[in-house]
Amino acid sequence: MALYVHKYGGTSVGDTDRIKNVADRIIQARQRGEDVVVVVSAMSGETNKLVAYAQAVQERPDPRELDVLLSTGEQVTIALLAMALRQKGCPAVSYTGWQVGILSDDVHTKARIADIDTARVRAELAEGNVVVVAGFQGVTEEGDITTLGRGGSDTTAVALAAALKADECLIYTDVDGVYTTDPRVEPRARKLERITFEEMLEMASLGSKVLQIRSVEFAGKYNVPLRVLSSFKEGYGTLISYEETGVEKALISGIAFNRDEAKLTIQGVPDRPGIASKILVPIASANIEVDMIVQNVAEDKTADFTFTVHRNDYCKALEILEKNCGELGARRIAGDDKIVKVSLVGVGMRSHAGIASKMFEALANEGINIRMISTSEIKISVVVDEKYLELAVRTLHDAFELERAA
Amino acid sequence: MALYVHKYGGTSVGDTDRIKNVADRIIQARQRGEDVVVVVSAMSGETNKLVAYAQAVQERPDPRELDVLLSTGEQVTIALLAMALRQKGCPAVSYTGWQVGILSDDVHTKARIADIDTARVRAELAEGNVVVVAGFQGVTEEGDITTLGRGGSDTTAVALAAALKADECLIYTDVDGVYTTDPRVEPRARKLERITFEEMLEMASLGSKVLQIRSVEFAGKYNVPLRVLSSFKEGYGTLISYEETGVEKALISGIAFNRDEAKLTIQGVPDRPGIASKILVPIASANIEVDMIVQNVAEDKTADFTFTVHRNDYCKALEILEKNCGELGARRIAGDDKIVKVSLVGVGMRSHAGIASKMFEALANEGINIRMISTSEIKISVVVDEKYLELAVRTLHDAFELERAA
Repeated sequence: MALYVHKYGGTSVGDTDRIKNVADRIIQARQRGEDVVVVVSAMSGETNKLVAYAQAVQERPDPRELDVLLSTGEQVTIALLAMALRQKGCPAVSYTGWQVGILSDDVHTKARIADIDTARVRAELAEGNVVVVAGFQGVTEEGDITTLGRGGSDTTAVALAAALKADECLIYTDVDGVYTTDPRVEPRARKLERITFEEMLEMASLGSKVLQIRSVEFAGKYNVPLRVLSSFKEGYGTLISYEETGVEKALISGIAFNRDEAKLTIQGVPDRPGIASKILVPIASANIEVDMIVQNVAEDKTADFTFTVHRNDYCKALEILEKNCGELGARRIAGDDKIVKVSLVGVGMRSHAGIASKMFEALANEGINIRMISTSEIKISVVVDEKYLELAVRTLHDAFELERAA
Repeated sequence: MALYVHKYGGTSVGDTDRIKNVADRIIQARQRGEDVVVVVSAMSGETNKLVAYAQAVQERPDPRELDVLLSTGEQVTIALLAMALRQKGCPAVSYTGWQVGILSDDVHTKARIADIDTARVRAELAEGNVVVVAGFQGVTEEGDITTLGRGGSDTTAVALAAALKADECLIYTDVDGVYTTDPRVEPRARKLERITFEEMLEMASLGSKVLQIRSVEFAGKYNVPLRVLSSFKEGYGTLISYEETGVEKALISGIAFNRDEAKLTIQGVPDRPGIASKILVPIASANIEVDMIVQNVAEDKTADFTFTVHRNDYCKALEILEKNCGELGARRIAGDDKIVKVSLVGVGMRSHAGIASKMFEALANEGINIRMISTSEIKISVVVDEKYLELAVRTLHDAFELERAA
């Protein structure tokens, strides 16, 4: 029998009516003859309420106790969903993380799953039950409750799907799939039928906040096909899997972008070994994450070194550079926090030359100046002035004909 | 080292400020050099909110799932109280029912504790921690979450105190002790320093809703001294324990009453064996609980049979009797739902004649007609017209000089 792991996020189970809708979806799957394991998050708003309680009693809430507290959120949802299924005549049983045997390490509030004992889930499935599992939580060997941190419910679903060798892991959310780009920027954006894990990682990290990166990495590692789909609308969503040989693949899958970037340039530093680390170590020490890094050597044997950071960290980074300017022997520090990053993503570009030149040409035709370029195997990113974001995305979407299926 | 089990009910932990107050009380106990295990209920209102959720998704919520749902209420409180204690520098650690080893049977929503494994609590106490335990919940041998039903947190506290051989079990609540009668009826009611388990059982079942009957029975069975005291006011409350020999004991400890009674009389039934069961079996089959039962034989060899029920069941009981009237050979069915029960309670009356006559005389002097009488070893109950309730309580309180300490 086909086995599917469903995952419903906080919005999808946000109130009792929505929980009933989720029950209907699960019953549809059962009527198609599928075995179903369901992973759910806390009802939206619940986790924030609990965190507010914690902060009211302890300045820095104790991590062990915070996990005891927060894990109640998902526990409420599993019980309600199991009840809703039973009300509609569908046999169902709920399991918390510790009950179902999701063993984790003891790093409270951001634990990692160490092992899953699937015996109890398999037994319940064999008895014809839908198994409803609390996402986001586990238990240590000593019996302490843990939570898996941000995106933890996605991780639970993928880990369960891997452990159970499920056919697919369906991530139900409030969007109906992964698009070629953000439809709010380019209305002609097209929903993708499929995308590879690598492309999804690039899309996710570049700003398409559909799935948590960790769960995509996890799914890729254990080769669990992921499907992103809407819990409110019908449809097949987008399948995230490995590239299939023999399938004609589009060159470009999508266009990601990131509005929250700022760039910093150190001009005229002496071009000698170690200069890059001298610049970046103080930045990293201040807990500032660096995204793109580009370095050019000028004719006078000095280098221009440019990197981007999150816009919130811009002032702090600028301050650090200016303090170190003398030591670095730099001529000048420059910065700009009115920039954005736009990226073409696609496994197809690996084997095709000419993508970059076509991209740059399309942007040039619209008079968009490229301020920075960075490339990887399956991605080309450019930094442009903030005001060109929408124009750049639409221009590239058009140039690569993304509105048309491959 | 002296060991005390504290129990704080839903009102005492009703919000984060009150949880901080509870932390202060516990820290005071620690400063007196006491080891403390704390049992807490859900924050007031939480359980009702969860029940409403359940009823919104399933007409008759599945008992197993209801337990998964409701047990989250106490889990929230234990985490918050442990945090509040840590914030104030007091080492503390929380435990759910399953974590602390409170093993129960599998009768969901009204499970009974089968065993408590105290190893983990003792280890935490030895390390200098306050141990905060979720009341009202346990776990079956199969690992299913159970709840103990109404008053379950009191039961958890008493069971833990018994298993740990604690010096006392302190039940913190919103009243500051057990009174000779309800102070809202008799302002001169006096707080009792001590009362026996048997007296407390009679007082509780007769309407003084300070403690749940089951936990008093449990404390009596395992000889755990119970103390009822206020979580908002200072004071030593009331100690509930076995009668101490050699201690001069008052004849009467208090006056309980019950406003919710109704009485039914079957007049002129033939006085022959089996008539009582013929009357009561159909009543019990309709799930109506019967309280007092009185039967008198008249000179004509017919009997008058009278019993009381909860006022909510009055109409249903009357209907059943009228339907069976012919079969019973009764002359007439009569009823009255405007009556109340007033009871004198005291272990001292065991060895003293004259209590009953003094009671009846005092009531007669005020013109209060007694409609029914029932007695036990340590209690005399009378049924009187509803309108006389306050007068009867005050008259008896005065006649037995209950405003004065023994």
